[in-house]
Amino acid sequence: MSETGLCDLAVVGLGVMGGNLARNFASRGLRVAGYQRTVEHAHALAAAHPEAHLRIASTLEELVGMLERPRRLVLMVNAGPAVDSVLDQLDPLLEDGDIVVDGGNSLYTDTDRRVARAEARPWRFVGMGVSGGSEGALLGPSIMPGGDRYAWERLRPPLEAIAARSASGVCVTYCGRGSAGHFVKMVHNGIEYGDMQLIAEVTSLMREGMGWPWGQVADTFAEWNRGELESYLIEITADILRAPDPQNPGALLIDAILDRAGQKGTGKWTVVAAAEHGVPIPTIAAAVDARLLSAAKDLRTRAEAALRPARGVIQGVSSADLRDALYASKIASYTQGFALLQAASEARDYGTNLAEVARIWTGGCIIRAVFLERIRAAFAQASGDKSELLVLAPDFAADVARRLPGWRRVVAAAAAAGHPIPGLSASLAWFDTLTQSRGSASLIQAQRDYFGSHTYERVDAPGVFVHTEWPKSSQ
Amino acid sequence: MSETGLCDLAVVGLGVMGGNLARNFASRGLRVAGYQRTVEHAHALAAAHPEAHLRIASTLEELVGMLERPRRLVLMVNAGPAVDSVLDQLDPLLEDGDIVVDGGNSLYTDTDRRVARAEARPWRFVGMGVSGGSEGALLGPSIMPGGDRYAWERLRPPLEAIAARSASGVCVTYCGRGSAGHFVKMVHNGIEYGDMQLIAEVTSLMREGMGWPWGQVADTFAEWNRGELESYLIEITADILRAPDPQNPGALLIDAILDRAGQKGTGKWTVVAAAEHGVPIPTIAAAVDARLLSAAKDLRTRAEAALRPARGVIQGVSSADLRDALYASKIASYTQGFALLQAASEARDYGTNLAEVARIWTGGCIIRAVFLERIRAAFAQASGDKSELLVLAPDFAADVARRLPGWRRVVAAAAAAGHPIPGLSASLAWFDTLTQSRGSASLIQAQRDYFGSHTYERVDAPGVFVHTEWPKSSQ
Repeated sequence: MSETGLCDLAVVGLGVMGGNLARNFASRGLRVAGYQRTVEHAHALAAAHPEAHLRIASTLEELVGMLERPRRLVLMVNAGPAVDSVLDQLDPLLEDGDIVVDGGNSLYTDTDRRVARAEARPWRFVGMGVSGGSEGALLGPSIMPGGDRYAWERLRPPLEAIAARSASGVCVTYCGRGSAGHFVKMVHNGIEYGDMQLIAEVTSLMREGMGWPWGQVADTFAEWNRGELESYLIEITADILRAPDPQNPGALLIDAILDRAGQKGTGKWTVVAAAEHGVPIPTIAAAVDARLLSAAKDLRTRAEAALRPARGVIQGVSSADLRDALYASKIASYTQGFALLQAASEARDYGTNLAEVARIWTGGCIIRAVFLERIRAAFAQASGDKSELLVLAPDFAADVARRLPGWRRVVAAAAAAGHPIPGLSASLAWFDTLTQSRGSASLIQAQRDYFGSHTYERVDAPGVFVHTEWPKSSQ
Repeated sequence: MSETGLCDLAVVGLGVMGGNLARNFASRGLRVAGYQRTVEHAHALAAAHPEAHLRIASTLEELVGMLERPRRLVLMVNAGPAVDSVLDQLDPLLEDGDIVVDGGNSLYTDTDRRVARAEARPWRFVGMGVSGGSEGALLGPSIMPGGDRYAWERLRPPLEAIAARSASGVCVTYCGRGSAGHFVKMVHNGIEYGDMQLIAEVTSLMREGMGWPWGQVADTFAEWNRGELESYLIEITADILRAPDPQNPGALLIDAILDRAGQKGTGKWTVVAAAEHGVPIPTIAAAVDARLLSAAKDLRTRAEAALRPARGVIQGVSSADLRDALYASKIASYTQGFALLQAASEARDYGTNLAEVARIWTGGCIIRAVFLERIRAAFAQASGDKSELLVLAPDFAADVARRLPGWRRVVAAAAAAGHPIPGLSASLAWFDTLTQSRGSASLIQAQRDYFGSHTYERVDAPGVFVHTEWPKSSQ
């Protein structure tokens, strides 16, 4: 410990994400201390990557002693009780101004609780989302910190050093007060669910509905990746659909993969948070539901056997229509996700800057896309505190209008032919509901007044709630 | 108090629902004591309905003294803190075996908390859902009690006396342990949201998409109410669409009602509960989302102005197709709702009998329908503890198969023409996803493994999770 002075920061938890983040810090010239409960694993990591000069502590006490003050500790432990446990252990060891960062995928309400706890203690707390998978952690993730603002200023140099860089800048920004960082990361993941589901639906329509070989599907995605859909998920889809099955010469790996999707909970959290904040996010919810149904493989097998729905050929749909449907649905999904961020920012006093969020998602993270730079620009141009919905920004409104005919053709043809498109159709239904100034809810209000005397407003007197004794023709 | 002996039970909270429930008990020959914090209101109620012989107490202490032991007190106060406040006040007044019933629309997790509280006290607690609106409370509601089983046996005679009666029996049953009663009531309300949304979409397609006058829409609903769609909500829809506007001679009231729908939270709770229990309920979720969007009237007006989507004429759709789409979507929605009940019953050890739930919904409640007797029969025939999904019951599977072509025509035509059908299309997308034994989630698993090393299963080795080093053609 004494040979080269103190370290710049510590990483607690050296699993795949934590280990790579530690190596990323080190690669930027920072002196990194590391700790992991299984100390042998930590030493093995340090030995495997000597260039990182990781300094491994055997105890948290020793780790704290290795750090420059005020200290900076980044926790990369499993979300949940493990975070609280480490905070319990660190609490007596920390001093005024020390900073603890939770870089895991914590539920934002847990972060709220930890923020409140830290307020009564000398140390400062930052809840921080990190996206980009293991490779992103090593080479440059998108980083979403929130919470203590003073702590953010102290964290800024090392985080800017390791974050991804895109044409829009360095992919880290202060996301807002309290649990804003983890809330933003949660919505990122919800949007990621939506993107993946929409892509899966389109590939399935091409293959099952239009009878394309996988190679043609892959080529089409590779082509789309050179246009307005350019993004990491489109790019890897082309890669995936070309991958050979190592166990079956001549076959493609995609055909050997079981259609049972896993999830870690952040999609579900996004749906619950949207319900709590009263924001419709049907595209993202459809993606979460589709994963749940995918996991119920036995049930789907029984259901197909019992109901044997005919699945026909998709008619009258072009490749350009599919691209338009995917792109327009993506705009719907991102509009929903950013609307949730905005509602949460208002309700929870985060002070989140939507343009900045879009900017830091342009690189490093799973949903990175050129498209996000356009979203950044749209929010940056918005005047006033309250941003308008993304789809109403002039650029995007024009975009959607142009793609609407193809979007409609795809949804109508798939519904007619029996191909499941929960994400594409939920997006279109949301769009059609949103853009109908006079909707069908008059009947719902009448029904509520009829059976529950809940009252309603008249079009000629909004704000005045009246009740009608409804005439009962029947009975 | 001394003149005619003690009362059989008490109602605490004499608002519209409580007052009517008290009068309902009295009309069945029960001696009813009543209490309301604003005592004048209670006396006014008693004076207005002398036939009920309501005995009004000025304090809860006095009320408790008016009752036969073990006492039965039914709380009909606002869900939320008011329930806890009354429990706090009653707690020291109650004795061994006394029963407190919460008959309000309480959130089931609040009921869990109160059940746990009562376990340490001499009195017993029952969380009970009541549906049927104010008229149902007076003339015969559907009643969904859960919790303490001994207390249920003591409550059974008075509840059976006041509950609705249908061809399937008396509309009250023990819904299960703990908070089962309020959970069942919550799902009832979620299904009610779904029914109302589906009906609103169909009426709007007729009016806006097919250009029917409201009279024709009303006549069609009246006709449907004589077939398999026969139900309270279909019946009142016909009534509503014929009601004249009292302020505008010759006009219909429906055209004067603002399309801004309210909600009291039970739909949102259902969506959150479904997410927590991992059960997709997209039809119900679409209904909740549609209410949220309906409330955003100004936003919709701006969105229509900005995006000006063309809305065309619905082509190639018959009245029978619309009926089939409505009926099939209803089956989808009820399948989802009962699946949620089943999942919650398993996860929360409720022991809910789905056939019994369907039975008590055949009368008294807002979703009452002949259809529910068929659901009862389907669940009653199911063998074993674990019911199969409703849509897979032979009767309903055949029903849906017959209606599938019309359902597809409606969804496809509405999507093509630009009419919002979030409920109808979410139901069909759910059905198509459910009945596809080999779905599109293989790609999602491949993507998750590509960017996050999350591993996947092969079709030839389910249960074995493998990781692939994906070839990266790009970059």
